[in-house]
Amino acid sequence: MASVGTVTAQSMHFAAPLPLRSGAALRDYTLVYETYGTLNAARSNAVLVCHALNASHHVAGRYAGQDQATGWWDNLVGPGKPLDTDQLFVIGVNNPGSCFGSTGPMSPNPDRPGQAYGADFPVVTVEDWVDAQARLLDRLGIEQLAAVIGGSLGGMQALGWTLRHPGRVRHCIAIATAPNLSAQNIAFNEVARRAIVTDPDFHGGHYQQHGVLPRRGLRVARMLGHITYLSDDSMDAKFGRALRAPEPAYSTQEIEFQIESYLRHQADKFSEYFDANTYLLITRALDYFDPARDAGDDLARAFAPARHNRFLVVSFSTDWRFAPARSREIVKALVDNRIDVSYAEIDAPHGHDAFLLDDARYHGVLRAYFERVAREAGAARPHHAHPSPLPAPRGAGPARHEAP
Amino acid sequence: MASVGTVTAQSMHFAAPLPLRSGAALRDYTLVYETYGTLNAARSNAVLVCHALNASHHVAGRYAGQDQATGWWDNLVGPGKPLDTDQLFVIGVNNPGSCFGSTGPMSPNPDRPGQAYGADFPVVTVEDWVDAQARLLDRLGIEQLAAVIGGSLGGMQALGWTLRHPGRVRHCIAIATAPNLSAQNIAFNEVARRAIVTDPDFHGGHYQQHGVLPRRGLRVARMLGHITYLSDDSMDAKFGRALRAPEPAYSTQEIEFQIESYLRHQADKFSEYFDANTYLLITRALDYFDPARDAGDDLARAFAPARHNRFLVVSFSTDWRFAPARSREIVKALVDNRIDVSYAEIDAPHGHDAFLLDDARYHGVLRAYFERVAREAGAARPHHAHPSPLPAPRGAGPARHEAP
Repeated sequence: MASVGTVTAQSMHFAAPLPLRSGAALRDYTLVYETYGTLNAARSNAVLVCHALNASHHVAGRYAGQDQATGWWDNLVGPGKPLDTDQLFVIGVNNPGSCFGSTGPMSPNPDRPGQAYGADFPVVTVEDWVDAQARLLDRLGIEQLAAVIGGSLGGMQALGWTLRHPGRVRHCIAIATAPNLSAQNIAFNEVARRAIVTDPDFHGGHYQQHGVLPRRGLRVARMLGHITYLSDDSMDAKFGRALRAPEPAYSTQEIEFQIESYLRHQADKFSEYFDANTYLLITRALDYFDPARDAGDDLARAFAPARHNRFLVVSFSTDWRFAPARSREIVKALVDNRIDVSYAEIDAPHGHDAFLLDDARYHGVLRAYFERVAREAGAARPHHAHPSPLPAPRGAGPARHEAP
Repeated sequence: MASVGTVTAQSMHFAAPLPLRSGAALRDYTLVYETYGTLNAARSNAVLVCHALNASHHVAGRYAGQDQATGWWDNLVGPGKPLDTDQLFVIGVNNPGSCFGSTGPMSPNPDRPGQAYGADFPVVTVEDWVDAQARLLDRLGIEQLAAVIGGSLGGMQALGWTLRHPGRVRHCIAIATAPNLSAQNIAFNEVARRAIVTDPDFHGGHYQQHGVLPRRGLRVARMLGHITYLSDDSMDAKFGRALRAPEPAYSTQEIEFQIESYLRHQADKFSEYFDANTYLLITRALDYFDPARDAGDDLARAFAPARHNRFLVVSFSTDWRFAPARSREIVKALVDNRIDVSYAEIDAPHGHDAFLLDDARYHGVLRAYFERVAREAGAARPHHAHPSPLPAPRGAGPARHEAP
């Protein structure tokens, strides 16, 4: 299976304000996005990929030049891969509020010339993101998606599409997600937010004006988040109680265990590239998502508008952040509406992170489902050939795609 | 069932250094403790209660005067209660390194006149605490305990007694505990420690010299710890997704959900009375406890010295911090040694915190076991009568006990 090769991010500016669920509005804004594969003549083979907390529009392929970062779902998206770009036209879009290119807290605040939004960036919700994505599709000339797919918070967006714009999407693929956060989920988010907000370098969210970054808080938030992405068993398998040295040093502040070293390293990396205000916004978007709330706490009633959509719901046995029971709540609400839903509970050891990995059974389920999506979309033959099933050579492969 | 009434903490000074597992030693030190009930003439009815992370020697009863705080295990310990002070002589002792009276980081450092230990307080382990407790028993004239009991980290100390001083204890009651921390347990501890250590008011642990306290970090640590004490289900039952106001305010920094309000309140209270260096020390003691490590990672071999002890092991179905599977590891190691062990897995909804609550089945198991302990100890008749099964009146009950 080949990679989509080298890719370039595109951007689209929107001059009309985006009305937000909070009652506020986002003034003119920019969305960055990438596409892979080819939109067919009927414009019927587009698949939107929604990102989760710390990902972006860079779903597949590599960037040219210094930054050769590979897309976060590159194992899934590409020619011959389960989400086959020979058949389907795939769009990755960065949500407003992010720190990866779309308008967000680090962008200039139009109301305060010379300053970034910082903490004044409006609170955005899953529904707002779906609306912003819909406007991008308008501009790309895509009336209806063949499918929308996402994992975790991305799965909430995929569900949101069927609730908000059910006529504009045929299939919804919601992976490792939940119909809302549990009290424990919210509690973990709140600990992360308190770590950030109480960092003295946070300055009420206007740290950029002070020339500092609340990296300490962001590190703590990331360490905590990271624990919830992994299963207890996978952490034991990978790190166990292994010490960094042959014998313990008996220190409260130095690293003793490998797991500590790993978490600190991950946190350090994260704090170098992620924005603290974005972290607050995105955890709040998770907290607020609750489609049943607007339907008298009746999830089945909430899904009534989606009666013509078709769903694939996937969960992972060791995911304790969004446990299979939460996915089954979604499935039950769909079944109660006699909506076409397939459900796969994958026995995988990796916890919540499993949705990003290429477990064979998981990818097998997605491949089969996307074959159906492509068939129904009347997907065109690809305009290019990929001569070998091997990955493209690093840096300049034969399957080079530029976004349109 | 009556309360033990008003109690007074005692203290004992030890002039001889305590050799520590780290190779260092604790110079002269003081232990504070409380006792309830009466030591019989044979000195055979003493039960030691070991405390966990944020508790102390104040196990039962109330203090006189302004501070009427009730002991942390008052529902278990008292006349006619499962750990019946009419039959057994109960000792609660505060461990070195604590912030509740025994020598700890807030105590004067003998090597630096005029300064507190702060971060220079030596790292203490479960084994060191057991040794310190044994010295207290020496001074109280108690050669052998009828039983030692503890939950969580206290359970580790109870187990530690049977490994280190098996001849000095008859029964070990280990509740909601584990033979060591999992990688995930260590990871949560590490997040808490990083929150504390990276608080700018921490000053490398010498915050007292700077006239500040790292309360921000301590609050984050406590919020996180608190989540791990509760079950997902009990948080949902108690807080769910309830908002503080009828409608969301759409804010990243203000409180939206009841669970956030609760956690912040708990954290604020905790940060007022708990010492940050103690938090580091106690989480490290948890991390380091690993009796199998000294026995070739063979837990059964580790328990070989305890072959003449008898055990009660108790776990709770919804405890995900120290899950029943961890207790079963202990039971298996004991059974492999043909050691007398009773095991109760209590179906309780409250998660790890269940060990502090008075679930009827849980207390029924403990009551039955302590009746056996008392019988074997030849417990004397009590020297006092408690005239009614009602709790003693507040402040000055008929069952007033002063520690000896």
